[in-house]
Amino acid sequence: MAERTYSIENTIAALAEAKKYSTLRDILSTMNPSDLASVFEELDNPSALPRLFRLLPKELAAEAFVEMESETQELLIQGFSDTELKEVVDELYVDDAVDLVEEMPSNVVKRILRQADAETRRLINEMLKYPEDSAGSIMTTEFVSLRPKMTVEEAEKRIRRTGVDKATINTCYVTDQGKLIGAISIRTLLLSDHDAVISDIMEENVISVTTTDDQEDVAQAFSKYNFSAMPVVDKEGRLVGVVTVDDAMDVMEEEATEDMEIMAGMSPSERPYLHTGVVETWKARITWLLPLMLSAALTGFVLNHYEGQLSSCLVLSAFIPLLCSTAGNSGTQASVAIIRGLALDELDMSNLGEVIWKELRVALLCGVCLAAANFVKMIAVDMALLHNGVTVGVAAAVCLTLVVVVLFAKLVGCSLPILAGKLGFDPAVIASPVVSSIVDVLSLLVYFRVAALLLPELRG
Amino acid sequence: MAERTYSIENTIAALAEAKKYSTLRDILSTMNPSDLASVFEELDNPSALPRLFRLLPKELAAEAFVEMESETQELLIQGFSDTELKEVVDELYVDDAVDLVEEMPSNVVKRILRQADAETRRLINEMLKYPEDSAGSIMTTEFVSLRPKMTVEEAEKRIRRTGVDKATINTCYVTDQGKLIGAISIRTLLLSDHDAVISDIMEENVISVTTTDDQEDVAQAFSKYNFSAMPVVDKEGRLVGVVTVDDAMDVMEEEATEDMEIMAGMSPSERPYLHTGVVETWKARITWLLPLMLSAALTGFVLNHYEGQLSSCLVLSAFIPLLCSTAGNSGTQASVAIIRGLALDELDMSNLGEVIWKELRVALLCGVCLAAANFVKMIAVDMALLHNGVTVGVAAAVCLTLVVVVLFAKLVGCSLPILAGKLGFDPAVIASPVVSSIVDVLSLLVYFRVAALLLPELRG
Repeated sequence: MAERTYSIENTIAALAEAKKYSTLRDILSTMNPSDLASVFEELDNPSALPRLFRLLPKELAAEAFVEMESETQELLIQGFSDTELKEVVDELYVDDAVDLVEEMPSNVVKRILRQADAETRRLINEMLKYPEDSAGSIMTTEFVSLRPKMTVEEAEKRIRRTGVDKATINTCYVTDQGKLIGAISIRTLLLSDHDAVISDIMEENVISVTTTDDQEDVAQAFSKYNFSAMPVVDKEGRLVGVVTVDDAMDVMEEEATEDMEIMAGMSPSERPYLHTGVVETWKARITWLLPLMLSAALTGFVLNHYEGQLSSCLVLSAFIPLLCSTAGNSGTQASVAIIRGLALDELDMSNLGEVIWKELRVALLCGVCLAAANFVKMIAVDMALLHNGVTVGVAAAVCLTLVVVVLFAKLVGCSLPILAGKLGFDPAVIASPVVSSIVDVLSLLVYFRVAALLLPELRG
Repeated sequence: MAERTYSIENTIAALAEAKKYSTLRDILSTMNPSDLASVFEELDNPSALPRLFRLLPKELAAEAFVEMESETQELLIQGFSDTELKEVVDELYVDDAVDLVEEMPSNVVKRILRQADAETRRLINEMLKYPEDSAGSIMTTEFVSLRPKMTVEEAEKRIRRTGVDKATINTCYVTDQGKLIGAISIRTLLLSDHDAVISDIMEENVISVTTTDDQEDVAQAFSKYNFSAMPVVDKEGRLVGVVTVDDAMDVMEEEATEDMEIMAGMSPSERPYLHTGVVETWKARITWLLPLMLSAALTGFVLNHYEGQLSSCLVLSAFIPLLCSTAGNSGTQASVAIIRGLALDELDMSNLGEVIWKELRVALLCGVCLAAANFVKMIAVDMALLHNGVTVGVAAAVCLTLVVVVLFAKLVGCSLPILAGKLGFDPAVIASPVVSSIVDVLSLLVYFRVAALLLPELRG
């Protein structure tokens, strides 16, 4: 279903070239805001943008505007007259206006705020004060609130009067002196008797979040309770806004991307891959690569220290990358399983004991399997076939080390994220690269200790 | 706001112990289905479960039942009489009934199907035929469809008559001889004139998906178009079901978890961490660890091959783990950035050239930085301070290798997922462990080649 949008861009470019504006208006008006945004972004000739945008009906124009990347939005605003800018700003929901203000350079922000009416300006400024990534920063302040004593008929009148443009109108909230006391869906209103009283038919157990709650927890609550909107209250329990499910989905996607990026050892970026500059991408990556590389220097010191052992049994060095990578992979598996469990609220800090006990058993099973497979391979291939210096003793040392380091790696991998969370860090930070770095050093130390025990020639 | 549910479990257990059923009913009836499900799952004494469940009002009971883990559901069903089972099954939405049938062992499935009425049984069987992870398998078949010639008043009557229990009633769909021709929100109905004709006020450009579309694409469409429901049509364009936003959120979460698990080299699991057995977890992990370890044996063969070089300049071996881990981290960064971009539809196969060009420049920047930092460290620490055999030549060899392997790693990391996608594989499969394995071998080959060029003593 998404393919349909791509073929249309050439047509639109050609019609714009030929100045067939009324045909263009007909085509554009049938399109969905997100598809329109994609088409506008893909235009080869950005100077045609404001002209095309002017063809759209006002409401559709504002909806498409919200869906665009900030670069395109800036380009458009620069092409707008003040009247045009005002028309778009007037159509925006407050939360979208706040997003816009946060993205634009300061001279554009000034123009936007100048065009917004006083009330919108006050709301924008109010919302800009909420901490980044809080419920307050993603909520909309446009919702329908009803009084408990209203009848269904009065409620419907109120909705008709105030609610035409309210994004979250599928659910109305019932307030008493500002405090949230209930919720009622449009569906219930539609199906109820006209004289029924709201307080009798509303849902009283309303789950709400607080303005300062983390947006990740809010998204998690959506997915737990299957809501399509979630009321946001201030510290005193007064209803101040509503988070809608589409914003919650965006947060979920953003947070999953962020976790993956951090797990892969990158600073998270909020912009799509192709819209991020080379220098910005470099910065996000080098800030992790450099400290990880410097910490990997520890492995060098360990190897230097055991140089004597290595030179008297050089074949030992051939298995170092295998040990490090297997240990690293084992640790990553455990840490990612735990980090995701924490993110999805399936696990919390209190499960540490249970998690360690489980990983211990999984690690033993994995370690023994890997060691057995590797032992067979070392005897059958290295010793019998290649004669590359591998002895039964060397094979035993490598395989015993494998069991121990897989155990270490799983324990480090599962406990570090939980401990990081306990200390107030993002558990994802303690993900594969960090776990691997720690586990590499541990593996080498174990390897040389085990080898010294099993191989008499190293002790001489 | 989630904390509230935890303290209540002890109270409930105590009340159940004391047989204070009417108090219990009052408490349970005020709770949310998801919270009820958590409380029921956490009960220390599962034998009390059916008794507690019977206290719930029918509709709430069914809603809580849907939210439970399949173990708890099975336990409950085994405690149910046939009449009780029928009551729960009658209250379930068809898609939830299908989920249940898919999760339960066959003897329980038989009991469930026997209690379902003929129409439900037919629908369940119909839906079981859709491919796993398709739009058809996650849609609900309970929706309200209107005729284009109806007036708003007639539509409202129809909704009252048929729609009370329909999950997706916030949007009604307009069909003509079964074909989907429009959509109209309850909100528009409520705000429109009673004599307005549906075909005049409905939205005609309805985005829909096909029963066989992949659920991941469906979830992606939700997040792109900000819908709260998405109609599903069959090959002939006939409306057969609706996917709701809560199911789309579940799919998004599931797919993100799956991607993370695959990226970390684990077979994906659909069950929460603590509910997965040790053997199952072991299987999901060993199936990746074992082949990865055996492929890591390649690094051993490379090292064996260059044993002569290593023995004449043993200090070279001290930097092998550093080179491999830095290369691995660089490759992982690129592959995860690309995999996530592909999953979010920000990238597709056609961007290969653009991606490679970008990664090339990022890699050069990263490589040069890392090499410079490492050169300074090797001269200042290893050579001047530790006298561990590092010479300017060795430092140059290590650092030049760094630049080359970071470049290789980024290119392999960014192009493999795109190529995997082109060949019809899940791009996430070509993630960090696989990229690292390939990059480890490449790194060693480059290292010994560069060292031989720069260090005359190795050629002797």
